[in-house]
Amino acid sequence: MRQEIGETGGGLRRGGSLVAKDARHVLHPWADLSALGGQGSLMVCEAQGVEVMDSAGRKYLDAIGGMWCVTVGYGRPELIDAMQAQARRMPYFTPFADVANEPAAELAALLAELSPGDLNRVHFTTCGSTAVESAVRIAHLYFASRGRPAKRHVLSRVNAYHGSTYLAASLSGKEADRTRFHYETEWVHHLENPGFDPDDAPLSASERLGQLIDGMEAAIADIGPENIACFIAEPVLASGGVLIPPPGYHQATRELCRRHDILYISDEVVTGFGRVGHFFASEAKFGIVPDMVVTAKGLTSGYQPLGAVLISDHIAGTLTESADPAKPVFSNGFTYSGHPVACATAIANIDVMQREDICGHVRDVGPYFVERLRELRNSPLVSAVRGDHLMACVECQVPGETGPTARNQALAGRVDAYCEKAGLLVRPFENLCIMSPPLVITKDEIDRIVAIMTESLARAEHDLRAGEIC
Amino acid sequence: MRQEIGETGGGLRRGGSLVAKDARHVLHPWADLSALGGQGSLMVCEAQGVEVMDSAGRKYLDAIGGMWCVTVGYGRPELIDAMQAQARRMPYFTPFADVANEPAAELAALLAELSPGDLNRVHFTTCGSTAVESAVRIAHLYFASRGRPAKRHVLSRVNAYHGSTYLAASLSGKEADRTRFHYETEWVHHLENPGFDPDDAPLSASERLGQLIDGMEAAIADIGPENIACFIAEPVLASGGVLIPPPGYHQATRELCRRHDILYISDEVVTGFGRVGHFFASEAKFGIVPDMVVTAKGLTSGYQPLGAVLISDHIAGTLTESADPAKPVFSNGFTYSGHPVACATAIANIDVMQREDICGHVRDVGPYFVERLRELRNSPLVSAVRGDHLMACVECQVPGETGPTARNQALAGRVDAYCEKAGLLVRPFENLCIMSPPLVITKDEIDRIVAIMTESLARAEHDLRAGEIC
Repeated sequence: MRQEIGETGGGLRRGGSLVAKDARHVLHPWADLSALGGQGSLMVCEAQGVEVMDSAGRKYLDAIGGMWCVTVGYGRPELIDAMQAQARRMPYFTPFADVANEPAAELAALLAELSPGDLNRVHFTTCGSTAVESAVRIAHLYFASRGRPAKRHVLSRVNAYHGSTYLAASLSGKEADRTRFHYETEWVHHLENPGFDPDDAPLSASERLGQLIDGMEAAIADIGPENIACFIAEPVLASGGVLIPPPGYHQATRELCRRHDILYISDEVVTGFGRVGHFFASEAKFGIVPDMVVTAKGLTSGYQPLGAVLISDHIAGTLTESADPAKPVFSNGFTYSGHPVACATAIANIDVMQREDICGHVRDVGPYFVERLRELRNSPLVSAVRGDHLMACVECQVPGETGPTARNQALAGRVDAYCEKAGLLVRPFENLCIMSPPLVITKDEIDRIVAIMTESLARAEHDLRAGEIC
Repeated sequence: MRQEIGETGGGLRRGGSLVAKDARHVLHPWADLSALGGQGSLMVCEAQGVEVMDSAGRKYLDAIGGMWCVTVGYGRPELIDAMQAQARRMPYFTPFADVANEPAAELAALLAELSPGDLNRVHFTTCGSTAVESAVRIAHLYFASRGRPAKRHVLSRVNAYHGSTYLAASLSGKEADRTRFHYETEWVHHLENPGFDPDDAPLSASERLGQLIDGMEAAIADIGPENIACFIAEPVLASGGVLIPPPGYHQATRELCRRHDILYISDEVVTGFGRVGHFFASEAKFGIVPDMVVTAKGLTSGYQPLGAVLISDHIAGTLTESADPAKPVFSNGFTYSGHPVACATAIANIDVMQREDICGHVRDVGPYFVERLRELRNSPLVSAVRGDHLMACVECQVPGETGPTARNQALAGRVDAYCEKAGLLVRPFENLCIMSPPLVITKDEIDRIVAIMTESLARAEHDLRAGEIC
């Protein structure tokens, strides 16, 4: 849709347009390979509060929070000052073996306080993918340390998203992302999509819950619990389309895992750090204490690359007590694990969140956001609106045509393009407009989002009637 | 060895010793699992130039450059200012699909200029592991796009190090790092360690080269070239022990890959950005142009987490021309791919390197560093000294006892501890002391390193004679 926006060419630096340099030299994540080198970019140059500005000086309300992550908003001096002070004091030193740095130690203690149950041990990584990889590898090590190396299979779910390294991409279950890459299929299994929309369900919530749990039990029996190391799950499936499981699902899956000695890994990369009103959603919202929690994104409000796995004392204790006497080394981790500048930024981010009670703010404006978005169902183009506090999704379709068909995708793309023209950035995926604004968003700004969405839907409806969307 | 150093407890912040918080809450990369929670840490707090300072106020000459990465030294205002300015201007926005940012576009263009041949397309990642994962996945995609999905096996080497995600750890070939984790073995293969030490070789360099190439040809024939996607190789095997292949090895392996339609991935995470005197070593030192180059570490001098894969125009062109019409999306990449703050820091780092001709400085002092270290062979405890400019390794052994035996490891650990007491940090691995100082190191500082190493070896020799090392 970018071609329609009237990109006027980027800023200049060292000669040459940066938009041209980007087109010539960058291979973007999720790029359209068929258009490589020929595609113009939306070059985002400046940002303040909840707004970003492109290279043509156009401002946009950022309804995607960078990409689920800029929670405290842009231009926060507290985070920038912390980053700079730490870079001056000590920008990097190895985190390996018995060498430590101050911000990583402090942040680990803070995360242990904020996280549920006995999740008191932190392994830092560089992003969500590396945190997911580390969590699954720790599950492997845990069972191998207990003399059960065959317990290495992993349960994930259709429509899950867990990252894009080889293993993380294999765990992900979005059909649209399964391309010609190679995937692990021998020991990775996908249970069905647990999303439940009460507005549009042939079954009651408890019937659907029964089906899902029966399905999970059958899968466990089929693979054999003696072969399964862990179950990995986003509490709300985020980029798969803000899919919310029926009530009771989290407790029931947690209980199944406990019964079969399967570790429960909660992927809170999106739901953590306030997105649904709490630092971590697992216990506060869904009443469960996982064995491991994966976090990233909101951890630094996106200002710095950082991920982490929070590990239970039970697991850490087992790794210690059953360490291989010949090779007790934990051979996992990264040059940038616990990067001091990234950790200092995360500490400042948590300070801001606590001082301004941002989780409380989300619990206040979150229901308003979802309620107002649900008004969009008045448009004949909107087939569903799903949301939980500040993560939400508007599903678009040509009346009578269901699913992510080419025409429905074109329709959602048209809505997205009109939003962009009107100064609103949403996140198009298939026939969905996914939204995850900065957590500091106000009710007035929510009203602006809904007004622009309403207008864009009306314009797309006009185009559809005029036969322009096919 | 840390217990000997007399750690006096870290600084205080929010109450509680940071050393205690680290011990209680952090799971470090390569931690000793059997000592989890009980181990004291060397808490590195401040850094300036080529020195770091711990929580007790003790200063150390940093002979490991953070961990191969702090190339321009600590406390560089140019890098810190660039970081801060970009964080103020725009700390983050999604890099997905057709959304771009200025520093990533500029850095990609710079990397295309600095890299050899037609490596003009850049995919940004968060670290070396994610860059290695992406490179191998791109090789898979490349052959699948050409209708050859069976070409997915990967050739690596014994003693290689490529990272610690599931696939990157499987590619690594250090026996010491193979622990109870699970590894991919069906489509990952390890050729023999190509290290060649002319001081200690039963064969001539050309005889050894012949053996290595024959071995690689046999492996290719055995696996079948129709099943092999790529060969991944560090030009000099770094953390495996600074292992240098015999002359002609790089060209011969490159030629074998070309003949069998196998992509050649050069892992320059360590050798890139000046460590051996050039921005990239592949062509400048070894006369080859790889199909992909992986970089990280020195890219930002370690001030920020960042990795990248440099991809040939040939590969990028094939991905475009043969894109799947039904699903042309490149479903690989990370939230933090091309992070604007990290990329701005990398640009400032390259500016400093070019303005101060740091590669020229390395070509000047590098041979002096290796030559002076080779004097350590006068100690009866030193069995080998290997090096290439500012990456070097001193191998310690009890006279007559070869290899990484427990006693030889204890001996090297003792040398390491004496160095630390005398204010020098080296990197112990098995019975090796590995060194990779900041690239701005002077000849005087090199003399200091050699003096402390000489004294530490003498003290360890005394302990050995006194029967204290067993």
